Parts: sequence; structure tokens; C-alpha cells
Amino acid sequence: MKILAKVSYLGTSYSGWQKQPNFPSVQEEIEKVLSKIFNSSIQIYGSGRTDAGVHAKGQTFHFEINKPADLVKLKYSLNMMLPNDIEILTLEEVDDSFQARYSAKGKHYQYVIKKCAKDPFLFHQVYLYPYPLDMDLFQASLNKFIGKHNFASFTSKDEDEQDFVREIYSIQIKEDNDFIYVDLIGNGFMRYMIRNIIGTSLVIASKKEDISFIDKRLDNSNRQIVSYKAPSDGLYLIDVIY
Amino acid sequence: MKILAKVSYLGTSYSGWQKQPNFPSVQEEIEKVLSKIFNSSIQIYGSGRTDAGVHAKGQTFHFEINKPADLVKLKYSLNMMLPNDIEILTLEEVDDSFQARYSAKGKHYQYVIKKCAKDPFLFHQVYLYPYPLDMDLFQASLNKFIGKHNFASFTSKDEDEQDFVREIYSIQIKEDNDFIYVDLIGNGFMRYMIRNIIGTSLVIASKKEDISFIDKRLDNSNRQIVSYKAPSDGLYLIDVIY
Repeated sequence: MKILAKVSYLGTSYSGWQKQPNFPSVQEEIEKVLSKIFNSSIQIYGSGRTDAGVHAKGQTFHFEINKPADLVKLKYSLNMMLPNDIEILTLEEVDDSFQARYSAKGKHYQYVIKKCAKDPFLFHQVYLYPYPLDMDLFQASLNKFIGKHNFASFTSKDEDEQDFVREIYSIQIKEDNDFIYVDLIGNGFMRYMIRNIIGTSLVIASKKEDISFIDKRLDNSNRQIVSYKAPSDGLYLIDVIY
Repeated sequence: MKILAKVSYLGTSYSGWQKQPNFPSVQEEIEKVLSKIFNSSIQIYGSGRTDAGVHAKGQTFHFEINKPADLVKLKYSLNMMLPNDIEILTLEEVDDSFQARYSAKGKHYQYVIKKCAKDPFLFHQVYLYPYPLDMDLFQASLNKFIGKHNFASFTSKDEDEQDFVREIYSIQIKEDNDFIYVDLIGNGFMRYMIRNIIGTSLVIASKKEDISFIDKRLDNSNRQIVSYKAPSDGLYLIDVIY
């Protein structure tokens, strides 16, 4: 039986989604509990990684079990046994051919900025940016990233993709009192790509760089990685699109 | 110039309010920043301690500085320099005779319980208690603590007060969807006192103890400390009453 799960987590206490020796990861926590429930080693396959400190409201993963299980009971057991910063939202049976990563058509991320007063109870859950922002410039900067582009200068130095081209379908800004929510939907995002897009757009909206800065770096095969990475605190994986 | 400050903090990363060697405390963070701003060692005096992991939405403290300061600018500087889990809410000048601790007439605490589904984004900010609760029994249990009582069995073993009598002026329960908020106002609360009151009342409301359990322990000079301490995660110091 192949199962697709949707999971929400606060990334603050983890070195990211992916299992790695000597560092806490969301994947490891879930595999530990699943293996305990089924009394055999179970591996899970995520839709992709999220970095240290990045949160999720709809990360997905799949896994296989030998015999049929009651998914309502399984979800209940998982949530009882997992730490309180990880919540299983849904479980559903999927076809044998389904792959959480390769079946995905796109991803929806959200970046949350708080403009003014700090809020201790949103510690590590927003990017506090208490500086003047020109919202027209912020919008214009973000618009430049929409579409199919070579994002080689907007990803991590360590990223060794053969192809740095990705397509961003939409970027939408919502303002609500002190908060700015930026929703990005695309076919895929490389490491640090969203944090570099947001960081660069904030620097432009604060008039510390001209908007032409983006034209010089985007679609430039001569890779010059930007140094305006916004912190992981504000980044949420909202949904994986199938 | 003597200044009274009101401060909000997420207690999760701290060993409590009070400064102690080798452990992070809210007091130490604030003193460090104040001493940097005024370029001399400044000590602050809290209204009382909060324990490791306990939060505040209105803790108070006082401190003295040699010459007058612009309190609007001082609040701004403090909030810029303090970590994001500590926020200075207000600063006001007070009389020389004022003492954050000894001038206090009472304290208002709130305990927050979440009944059903977990929420990763409230990690360490509520007590998740997903068990059946008889709310009439919960109310009846809490009512027993209202008034002047000897709370010797409801405080910490280490508490060495000469007098274990405290007066609780009111205990109010509010329910809002999955959440239960318990507001307690009294002339003073000893260590673990609220967490023991809440934990005991939850155990009774879950029918794991009879309500007569409270009568046996409250106002009993023969000290038998209860073992139903609710976690610090759900406890907030809301206000200090002057």
C-alpha cells in the first residue's frame, strides 16, 4: 500500500527536512515514528527538501507499507507520537506509480514579512523588517522574476544543477496591517532561490539598490550570486501541486 | 530618573526571568542591552520571577539612570537591540519610592490549553491536552482555589516561604473553539502554584481523581505536594497590578 501524506511543521528546531547524521531533521522524526508503529524500518520520500529553519504548511511525502492500514487511525497515532512541532494533516492511498517528488507539477511557497513592531510570539515565524519600504518598487522588483528565467545568480553557490532555468507562474503580494505575505507558485525552486528573490526585492524597495540590479543578474549565464538572502524564518512551503 | 518598564517575552529560549550563571535569562538580556546603551552597568528589578519556559505579556521591572532620558527613543533602541523574543511594551517615569516588586498589589496570569488538534506554530505556546474534559468539573475544581488559602501543597518542594497563604481574587474560564483560557488574578503566586492548580483541575476534569482530592490538600498544614504540574508552555504573566 502506497500512501501520500501532507505534513505541517515549524522548522525552527530542525536542520531541515532531509535526514543527515548528527542533525535533527523532520524526515528522521517521521521515519522514527512510522518504523515504531509498523515495527519495521520505513523510509519516506519527500517532495523535496526544505532548508534549516524553513517551515511547511503542506509539505508532502510518500511511503509504502506491506499490508493495508486504517489511515484514520494511522494519522491519529502519528500525531500522538510525533513532537508537537510536526503535524500530519492528511493521509491518502495513491497508485503504485505515484512519486511525491517526480509526480509534482509545481510548488507554492509563501514568505512572511512583518513591517513594524516585533512580536515575541512570532519568534522565528516571520522576517521582521522595520525599515521604510516602497511597495510599488517591491511589486515591480518581484514582477521581474515571473516567467521562465535562468536563476543561476539567485541560488546557492553549492547548487550544481545542470540547468538553472525555472519557471515562476505567479508572485502575489498581500498586505494585512503590519504583515506582508508574498505567495510564489512555480514549477520548482532551487536552494535559497526564494530567499534571494525576496531579499533582493526588499533591498530595492528600501532603495539600497536600483531595480536594474535584477536585470544584471537574472538570465545572466555569467554567474554572480547575490548576497541579499532573506532569513529562513519567514519562508513556508504551503503546498505541492500534483 | 527611575523608570518602570512593561515587557513581553516568549519564555521558550530562557531558563526564566532571573539572572543566573551559565543559563540564559530575560533579565540578563535586558541588562546587557541597557548597560550598552548607557555605557555603564545597569541592574533591573523585576516584579517577580517567571520560571523556565513561562511567557509574559506584561511582566514589569524598574531601573534607575543617572540623567533624564527620552523614553520614546529609549524604547525604540531597546527593541532594536533586544532579541526578537523580547519586546519592551512601555516605559514610564515613576517616583523614587516605587518598587516593581513591593509596590505590586497583585498579578494576573493566564493559562492556555488547546483541546484537540496540534498546531506546530503554537509549539511551546500552549498546553496540548487532547483528552475528554468535563468542563463543569473543571470549573468546580478551579472554584475551590478562589479566596484565601494555604497553598503549601500546591507549590514547589523548594519553596521555603514562612507563610504559604495567598489570596486568589478570581479565576475565570473562557472557551474559544479548541482553546481554553484560564485567567487567574491574585495577590501573589508561589513557584509552580498556578501550574499545580491547573494540572490538578485537569486531572479531576478528566476523571482521573475525585474533586475531594483538592479538599485533602488545600489548607492542609501537613504538606503533601501534588504531582500534577501542568507544563510551563501554557503559562503567561499577563499583567502586574499596581
